[in-house]
Amino acid sequence: MSAFKYDLLKQDEGSQARRGRITTARGVIETPVFMPVGTAGTVKGLLPEALKEIGAQIILGNTYHLYLRPGHKLIQQLGGLHKFMNWDRPILTDSGGFQVFSLGELRKITEEGASFQSHIDGSKHMLTPELSIEIQQALGADIIMVFDECIPHPAERKYVADSTNLSARWAKRCREAMPAGSSDSALFGIVQGGMHTDLRKQSAEQLQEIGFEGYALGGLSVGEETSLMYEMMEFSLPLLPADKPRYVMGVGTPENLVEGVARGCDMFDCVMPTRNARNGNLFSSFGKISIKQAQYRDDETPIDPDCDCYVCRNYSRAYLRHLFMSREILSSVLNTHHNLYYYQQLMAGIRTALEEGRFHEFRAEFYRKRNQ
Amino acid sequence: MSAFKYDLLKQDEGSQARRGRITTARGVIETPVFMPVGTAGTVKGLLPEALKEIGAQIILGNTYHLYLRPGHKLIQQLGGLHKFMNWDRPILTDSGGFQVFSLGELRKITEEGASFQSHIDGSKHMLTPELSIEIQQALGADIIMVFDECIPHPAERKYVADSTNLSARWAKRCREAMPAGSSDSALFGIVQGGMHTDLRKQSAEQLQEIGFEGYALGGLSVGEETSLMYEMMEFSLPLLPADKPRYVMGVGTPENLVEGVARGCDMFDCVMPTRNARNGNLFSSFGKISIKQAQYRDDETPIDPDCDCYVCRNYSRAYLRHLFMSREILSSVLNTHHNLYYYQQLMAGIRTALEEGRFHEFRAEFYRKRNQ
Repeated sequence: MSAFKYDLLKQDEGSQARRGRITTARGVIETPVFMPVGTAGTVKGLLPEALKEIGAQIILGNTYHLYLRPGHKLIQQLGGLHKFMNWDRPILTDSGGFQVFSLGELRKITEEGASFQSHIDGSKHMLTPELSIEIQQALGADIIMVFDECIPHPAERKYVADSTNLSARWAKRCREAMPAGSSDSALFGIVQGGMHTDLRKQSAEQLQEIGFEGYALGGLSVGEETSLMYEMMEFSLPLLPADKPRYVMGVGTPENLVEGVARGCDMFDCVMPTRNARNGNLFSSFGKISIKQAQYRDDETPIDPDCDCYVCRNYSRAYLRHLFMSREILSSVLNTHHNLYYYQQLMAGIRTALEEGRFHEFRAEFYRKRNQ
Repeated sequence: MSAFKYDLLKQDEGSQARRGRITTARGVIETPVFMPVGTAGTVKGLLPEALKEIGAQIILGNTYHLYLRPGHKLIQQLGGLHKFMNWDRPILTDSGGFQVFSLGELRKITEEGASFQSHIDGSKHMLTPELSIEIQQALGADIIMVFDECIPHPAERKYVADSTNLSARWAKRCREAMPAGSSDSALFGIVQGGMHTDLRKQSAEQLQEIGFEGYALGGLSVGEETSLMYEMMEFSLPLLPADKPRYVMGVGTPENLVEGVARGCDMFDCVMPTRNARNGNLFSSFGKISIKQAQYRDDETPIDPDCDCYVCRNYSRAYLRHLFMSREILSSVLNTHHNLYYYQQLMAGIRTALEEGRFHEFRAEFYRKRNQ
């Protein structure tokens, strides 16, 4: 009997946006939610305490990376990923499919699974739906994703159709490897279908026939136009059951989050806030700034005067620029803290607006500030 | 009228060790003390809050680095180094002499000062005693060091004698640039003289004739045998006034600290705990371990079972090894935290032992644990 459930608390009247709550064995997740990415058992540069301080409710772990290093069996032996990395709130793991897909020439896909070479040492591996589930369970993930192929864009329609069917067969094998209610963890299906609405519809139906605790949209933010991505969300999200959480994988910019919520999405993840932080690109209510610019050399104001995060309360742009130019470790630490806080605050603002029935105004205000 | 003073609280009976207290305008420093090095306006990888948590009472800043980047005038304009880096406890700055000396072929020394080329962009600069004081005052240091030449080892006796005299003339110019009692900051003289006791004696006398708020030993830990370094400490420290703090610069290992204290030293600084941390070398009561070793792959114990630092309370050697092998930022953050905590705890233990009149037993126990 699984502890996992989703409660739809409030449906927005002017859009598909919804305020909800996911309950897991490791605690509650208020949605819509953004999940920071902790690829290799750490959200790069941040202590778990800092993640909690900025309001992270759930983080991501990457199956591909942890399988290769340090190995899922080792993590299991040491008590699971939560204990290993000192994080007691929920963790969602991806299936490894997206990373294997990213390897390009280094991977080969068959009915059985995906064979690939490690980016670390070139060693050969085969990831199957069954192994992906085994790894994610060994890690102790609270939300487990089915193993699928992430379809590149653009792609031939026949390739997309075949791949979507293959992913559906793999999704079934994942469900069989982890029957509903067999553990406290949830298994999410992933809708594929590329940029073809009929294939998206077919995929959504195939997955619901199998039955999952939640549903994700995969294969978005892979190089397509933003308007096309929104179109796919707008078409696909309403095809999914209203009483289950909906997750758009690997998305995205602050704008993408606001628009994703408006189209009915409950969960997001993306490396954007963390990777941008390490590159000195900082998010704010008025847009993104590149801290290395000479104009910030003697700027004693915080990144965002409207932000009340630890970084904005204590450090100037001039100091952050200095740390970045000097390639100091603290540069990544502080920039990551701020960017993730910005993302968490954005989602908290969205949730409050939904509760108070003013999501429409929130969305307008969000764009107004950026265009000032 | 300077706020700076030193109180000798207790003189050990079995050694030259002493328990004291330095008072500065920015707070009190219990001695003997170890000062973490914050080269470029940050103790690499650590937040100021973490530094306080581990008990750091005072940190170091490097004049050479901050002069070149971001520039002392910029830091002054922004309110000084304390505000810039969000650290409100005392800061000691070195004079830049040691770093310029480290540049080797890139620097040239004359009566006027040291001309050198920047390690960052090759630009040409001349550092003089007067400029060094100006920079350190602009940074807002609580303890300012005289500009001197750090003599390499081995060196010809004539070179050592001439250099020691030059450093004495420079020390006088520093004092003239910053007369006693002219500010809340203290100015420390630096005893040179290489490995020659007569030159060390001469240097100590020259400096006391000028008169400083504290005295340091320079030119140690520059490649000489440890026994020779101890001999120099043993000879030189008692030549300095008992009512002023004594600081051995750039030293050292945990053993060096214990032995330095036994010989009458009150203050230490060294990059050893921080640099070692970034290289995966971790200090403990039983010696140093290299976390990358394969034996720690599945080791679920903390770095040091006797350590109660944040890292040892929450993370296994296996996790720290994983972070190090994956070159994760958190590896440097956690390792630095632990190593500096170890150093701070060592000094706190020494201070308590001195208060309780059992420094002799503390020293014996320190070696017993390491030889188990």
